[in-house]
Amino acid sequence: VNRPVRVAVVGLGYWGPNLARALEEVDNVHVTWLCDMRREVVDRVGRRHPSAARTTQVDDVLDDDGLDAVVVATPISTHYPIALAALSAGKHTFVEKPLTTSSAQAVALARLAAEQALVLMPGHTFLYSPPVRSVKRLIDEGHLGDIYFVSTSRVNLGIHQADVSVAWDLGPHDFSILRYWLGENPTWVTALTRSCVLPHVPDVAFVNAKFPSGTIAHVELSWLAPSKLRRTTIVGSRQMVVYDDTSNEPVRIFDSGVSLPDFGSYGEHRLSYRTGDIISPRIPHDEPLVVEFADFVAAIREGRKPVSHIDLGIDVVRVVEAVERSLDDLGARTTVEADIEVEAA
Amino acid sequence: VNRPVRVAVVGLGYWGPNLARALEEVDNVHVTWLCDMRREVVDRVGRRHPSAARTTQVDDVLDDDGLDAVVVATPISTHYPIALAALSAGKHTFVEKPLTTSSAQAVALARLAAEQALVLMPGHTFLYSPPVRSVKRLIDEGHLGDIYFVSTSRVNLGIHQADVSVAWDLGPHDFSILRYWLGENPTWVTALTRSCVLPHVPDVAFVNAKFPSGTIAHVELSWLAPSKLRRTTIVGSRQMVVYDDTSNEPVRIFDSGVSLPDFGSYGEHRLSYRTGDIISPRIPHDEPLVVEFADFVAAIREGRKPVSHIDLGIDVVRVVEAVERSLDDLGARTTVEADIEVEAA
Amino acid sequence: VNRPVRVAVVGLGYWGPNLARALEEVDNVHVTWLCDMRREVVDRVGRRHPSAARTTQVDDVLDDDGLDAVVVATPISTHYPIALAALSAGKHTFVEKPLTTSSAQAVALARLAAEQALVLMPGHTFLYSPPVRSVKRLIDEGHLGDIYFVSTSRVNLGIHQADVSVAWDLGPHDFSILRYWLGENPTWVTALTRSCVLPHVPDVAFVNAKFPSGTIAHVELSWLAPSKLRRTTIVGSRQMVVYDDTSNEPVRIFDSGVSLPDFGSYGEHRLSYRTGDIISPRIPHDEPLVVEFADFVAAIREGRKPVSHIDLGIDVVRVVEAVERSLDDLGARTTVEADIEVEAA
Amino acid sequence: VNRPVRVAVVGLGYWGPNLARALEEVDNVHVTWLCDMRREVVDRVGRRHPSAARTTQVDDVLDDDGLDAVVVATPISTHYPIALAALSAGKHTFVEKPLTTSSAQAVALARLAAEQALVLMPGHTFLYSPPVRSVKRLIDEGHLGDIYFVSTSRVNLGIHQADVSVAWDLGPHDFSILRYWLGENPTWVTALTRSCVLPHVPDVAFVNAKFPSGTIAHVELSWLAPSKLRRTTIVGSRQMVVYDDTSNEPVRIFDSGVSLPDFGSYGEHRLSYRTGDIISPRIPHDEPLVVEFADFVAAIREGRKPVSHIDLGIDVVRVVEAVERSLDDLGARTTVEADIEVEAA
Repeated sequence: VNRPVRVAVVGLGYWGPNLARALEEVDNVHVTWLCDMRREVVDRVGRRHPSAARTTQVDDVLDDDGLDAVVVATPISTHYPIALAALSAGKHTFVEKPLTTSSAQAVALARLAAEQALVLMPGHTFLYSPPVRSVKRLIDEGHLGDIYFVSTSRVNLGIHQADVSVAWDLGPHDFSILRYWLGENPTWVTALTRSCVLPHVPDVAFVNAKFPSGTIAHVELSWLAPSKLRRTTIVGSRQMVVYDDTSNEPVRIFDSGVSLPDFGSYGEHRLSYRTGDIISPRIPHDEPLVVEFADFVAAIREGRKPVSHIDLGIDVVRVVEAVERSLDDLGARTTVEADIEVEAA
Repeated sequence: VNRPVRVAVVGLGYWGPNLARALEEVDNVHVTWLCDMRREVVDRVGRRHPSAARTTQVDDVLDDDGLDAVVVATPISTHYPIALAALSAGKHTFVEKPLTTSSAQAVALARLAAEQALVLMPGHTFLYSPPVRSVKRLIDEGHLGDIYFVSTSRVNLGIHQADVSVAWDLGPHDFSILRYWLGENPTWVTALTRSCVLPHVPDVAFVNAKFPSGTIAHVELSWLAPSKLRRTTIVGSRQMVVYDDTSNEPVRIFDSGVSLPDFGSYGEHRLSYRTGDIISPRIPHDEPLVVEFADFVAAIREGRKPVSHIDLGIDVVRVVEAVERSLDDLGARTTVEADIEVEAA
Repeated sequence: VNRPVRVAVVGLGYWGPNLARALEEVDNVHVTWLCDMRREVVDRVGRRHPSAARTTQVDDVLDDDGLDAVVVATPISTHYPIALAALSAGKHTFVEKPLTTSSAQAVALARLAAEQALVLMPGHTFLYSPPVRSVKRLIDEGHLGDIYFVSTSRVNLGIHQADVSVAWDLGPHDFSILRYWLGENPTWVTALTRSCVLPHVPDVAFVNAKFPSGTIAHVELSWLAPSKLRRTTIVGSRQMVVYDDTSNEPVRIFDSGVSLPDFGSYGEHRLSYRTGDIISPRIPHDEPLVVEFADFVAAIREGRKPVSHIDLGIDVVRVVEAVERSLDDLGARTTVEADIEVEAA
Repeated sequence: VNRPVRVAVVGLGYWGPNLARALEEVDNVHVTWLCDMRREVVDRVGRRHPSAARTTQVDDVLDDDGLDAVVVATPISTHYPIALAALSAGKHTFVEKPLTTSSAQAVALARLAAEQALVLMPGHTFLYSPPVRSVKRLIDEGHLGDIYFVSTSRVNLGIHQADVSVAWDLGPHDFSILRYWLGENPTWVTALTRSCVLPHVPDVAFVNAKFPSGTIAHVELSWLAPSKLRRTTIVGSRQMVVYDDTSNEPVRIFDSGVSLPDFGSYGEHRLSYRTGDIISPRIPHDEPLVVEFADFVAAIREGRKPVSHIDLGIDVVRVVEAVERSLDDLGARTTVEADIEVEAA
C-alpha cells in the first residue's frame, strides 16, 4: 500500500512557509515536521499545519526514523551542512536553489546521495512553470530550429540581499532555465557587475555566455530597475519566441526569420526575410511549486529522474562560480567547470 | 553679407538622398553638387534638386572652388579616402557614421582638418534627436544623480549588411549616445557575437562596457529579432529613465530608487526603497537631420564645436575596434584605445 | 472608553468571507457573528474566525443586544428584507452594492435609518480605491477643468449571473464612481443591451448618460470580452485622465487640450491644440475594503457621513432602474428619478 | 486595346493630392486634369503631375470628351452638385466619403448613375485596408460565429472641423466598416453628443446601434482624447477579434467564448468558459487607396460592383442622418431609413 511520504520543512523564513503549503497540496504527502531556529517562527507557521511537529533543532527532525524526506529552505550558506546531515541520516533531500555555494560541495552531496540511493533534488522551481515548459516543448519539437541566441532580463526594484550578490540570488533562475531548454551548460562566461548601493554586494550583473552548440546568451540581472521585467527572447533559425513572465500572454511565438538561398551567392547575398503570424498559445495555470513537489515525490517513489535533477543543479552552481571568478578577474572570459556526470545515464 | 553655404552630397545610396533633402531645409544652405558613381542614380535624385550640378566623379566636386563643404554618404570602406581628398581640397567635411574603419584613419583625418582649420564632423544623427537630448539634459542637470548603469537594446529583423558586422552597422548609434550622455568613453569592453545567417558576418552582438567613472553598460545589437526594439534604461542614484525610440512616449522618468541610511548599518542593512511618480515629458518633433546640418553650418560659419564633434567620432571608432578585437580574442576583455585629444579644448 | 464595534457578517458566499477578513483588519472592530443559511459554509468560514459565533438564522444575530452592526452580503434580492430587519432591530447596517432592487425600497430603508439615527451604508467599495480617490482629488482641485465627458469600459470574460443582468451586476461600480466624481446623478440615460448567451439575461450593455451640468458619459458593461478591460477616460477642459484599474499605472494625467482663442473668430476657428507632459502619479496600495469599513466605523462612532453614503446608494439604484426601463422600452431615452434628499445636509 | 482610364481630380485640399498620387500608382490610369478653385493650389500640386492639365473651373474638366472619370474631393457640402454635373456629363464618378449630406441626394445621384450606366462610387477607403478585409474574411468564413456585438472607438486630439460634426467627419468610417462586415445597416440608433469646444459643433459622440440580425454596436467618436485610439472589438459566438488600426498587430483573434450546454438547465445554468490561443495573423501592407482605385477602374472597365458600392454609400449617409435626428431629439431612439435598393442585384 501507498503510505504518505513524510516530509520535514527546515527553514521557515520568506520562502519556507510557501513550500510547506505547496507540499500539503500534493497527493499523499504529509508535512510531519516544521523546523526553524526561531521558536516564534515555528509556532506561527505551525498554526497552519496543526498535525506537524515543531522544533528548533534539525537533529530532532533527522532522528525521526519515520521521516522520508527533508526540504531545506535555510539561508544559502547553510545548505551544504544541512543537506549533508540529512543525506547522512538517510533522508531524501530537496534543497532550495542554489544547491550550495560551491560546485565541490554540490558534487560531494551528489556522490553521497548516489551511494545511498537517495534522491537529492535542487529546487529550480521555474523548470515547472507552465510557460517555461511550453518553450521547452517548442524547442524539443524543433519548431524554433537551431537556437541562435537567447537574451534575457530579470530586473526590478529590490530586494537587496545583504550577504549574496545578485548573481547568486537571481542568476540560478536563468541559468537553470537555459540549462533546461538547451540541454547544455555554457563553455565560458564573461560578467560585468557593479555594487551600486551596498559596498561589495553586486546589485546589477551583465553576463554573456557561450554554449558548446554555438548558441550564445546574454543574461541581465538587477535589483535596481525602473520597473519589473522578466523577459526572454529566444531566436531560432525557424521561429522566435518571447517569454515574458509578467505578461498575460507569457509565451509569444513569432513565425519570422531570415533564410539564405543556396544559389547565386556570388558575393551578393540575397536574403529572404519572412514575417508571419504571431501566436500566444494558451498556457495552463498549474502552480509550479506543487508540480515540482509532485516530481520530487515521484522521484522518491518510482526512482524517476526529476526535471530539476542533480546534474542540472550542479551545473547551475558551476555557472555562478564562473560568473564570480570572471568578476574577480575584472570581467575576463572564464571557463565554466565541466565534470564527469555524477549520476548514471 | 551671409552668402549661402554651398554643399556637395557624395554618395546617393539609401541614405544620401535623405541628407540632400535635409540640407535644403537648413537656412542659407545650397546643395550645389550631387555625386554618385552610378549615373542613373545621380539623375534620379537630381530631379528633386534641379539647381544642383550632377557628376559621377568626386574630382569634379572637389575642383569647384566655390564649394564650401562635402557631405560623404558612401559605403563605409570609402569614407577615409574621400574625406581625405575633400579635406586636402580645403573643403569642410561631414562624414556619415562611422567616420572610418580604423581609429588611425580617423585621427589622421582629424589632424589634417585641425591643421587646415576645417570642420570635420561625423554624422552621429541620434545626438540631435529630441529624446536623446532630453535625456542628456536630465543627466547634466543632475536629476538622475550618479549614473549606475545603462542597458540598451537595438534589435529588429533585418537588414543584413553583406560586408560589415552588426557592431559596425548599429553599434555607432549606441556608442555615440553613451559617449554623449556620459561625457566619457569606455575603458574596456567584452563582446560576444555570432554569425547566425551569413558566415563571417556577425548579426547579433552582446557588448559589455566599463567606463572610467564606474558606470557600466550593456549594449545588445541584432539584425535578428522578433520585433523592433530601441530601448535604453538608465539607472541613476536619484532617478531612472527609460528611453524607447519606438514609443509615443520616448522618454519616461521614474522617480524611484534605493537609499542607504548612514546610521545603524551594523551588518544589517536597512535599505529604503522609493517608488514615486512616472513622468513622460513632452518631447518636441524636430527632425534630427535638419538640426544636425544646422549644427554643421554653425560650425563652419562660427567655428563652434558641433555636438557630434570629431573627438566623439574618433572615440566611437575606437569602441567598435575594441569590440572587434574582443571578438577575435573570443570575447576577452579588451582595452579601448585612449589617445591625446586632437582638438584643443 | 472605546469598546470594539461588534459586527455580524450575514451572507458568506463569494464575497462575504472577504468582508469578514477585512473587518478584522480595522482597528477596534470585532466580528462577533457569522451567518449563512448553509451550515457547512458557516463552519468553513468560521474556522478562520474562531471567536465569532456561528448561526444559520438571521434572527439569532439580530436578537443579540450586544451587537452594534450588521454587514449584509447575501444575494441582491434579499438585501431589502434583511436590511429592514436589521434596522428594525436597531443595528447599524452595511449593505453590499447594489443597496436594493428598487429605489422605493432604498428610500424606505433610508427613512427608517434616519428615523432611528442609525447608519445605513451601501458597499460601493470602488469609492475607497486609491486610484478612484486620486481622480476625485484631481477633479475637486480643478486640475481637469470642466468635465466634458467620461467614457468607461468594464468588460471581461465571465462570470454570468443567472438571475441578474450585467447592468445590475457591474453597473453599480461605474454609476457609483460617476456619482462620486461628478457629485451629480444623470438626468436621463439610454441603454442598449443583448442577452447573448442566456435568454433574458443581458450580458452586454451600452449605456449613455446625460448629467445636469452638461457632462455626458458612456458606460460599456460586458461579461463577454476577449480580455479584461477596466478603463475610464475623463476629458476635461484643462486636462485629461485615463484610469485603468488593471494597469501598474492606474492613473495617467495628460496635460493636453484644445483652446479657442477669443479673437479673430470670423467664421474661421483657429483652435490651439496643446500636448504636454503625461504623469503617472504614485498611487498608494491601501486596501479599499479596509478603508471602507474604517469609514463605516467612523460613521457609527462619530456620526460622520461616509464617502459611500446613503443618498449616493439610492441614486445608483435609480440609474440602474432607468437603464432597465430604457431596455424595456427598446433603448428609448429614460429619465432618471430624482427625489428630495433623505438625509439632512 | 486597353487604353488608359483618364481621370480628373477635383478638389486639391488636404486629401485630394493623396488621391492624385494614388491614382498614378494604379495600372493603366492617367491623371489628365487637376482642378481646384485656388489657382496657387492647382499649380503647386500640378508640379508633381506634369502631364496633367490644370484648371480652376470644373466645367473645363467636364467638357473634355476624352475624360472617363472624375474623382471628387471637395468640401462635403459641394459633393452633390459636382457629382451631379459629372454624371450628367457622362463621367464615371468617385466621391470622397460621405457621399452627400442627405440620403435623398445620394439616392438621386445613384438613380442618375444607374440610368446612364455609369459607375458612382463612394470613397470608403477603410473597406480596402488589409486589416478590415482580414476581419471581413474571418466573419464570412464563419470563424467568429454569430456576431453578438461590436464596440468601437475612434478618438484622438484634433482636428476640429468648423462646419461639420464629428459624426459626419469620423462616423462614415465606422458605419461603412460595420455595413461591410455585417452586410446590413442598423434598424435604429441612439446618439449622445456634446459640443465641448466650439458652439454647435459636436466634437464627441456616443452612438448605439441595433441591427436587424440582433447584433448591437457602440461607436465612440471624438476629436478630444488623451491619445489616439482606433480600436474595435467584435464578439462572436465562436471567437472574438480586436482590430486596432494603430497597432503593429492590427488584428488579434481570441479563441475564447462561453457555451451553454443543452442539458441540465433546470434554473441552474452551468456555463462553460473557454480561453484559448490568441493569434495575430500577418497582415499585408497594401496601400488602401491604391487598391480602392484599382477597384474603381475595374468597375469602369468590367462593370464589376466595387466593394465600396453605392448602396453601401447611401446606407452610410442614412445612418449619419439618423444620428443627427437622434441628437435633435435629445438622444431619442431614431429609425434608420431603409429604402428599396437602387441597383439591381
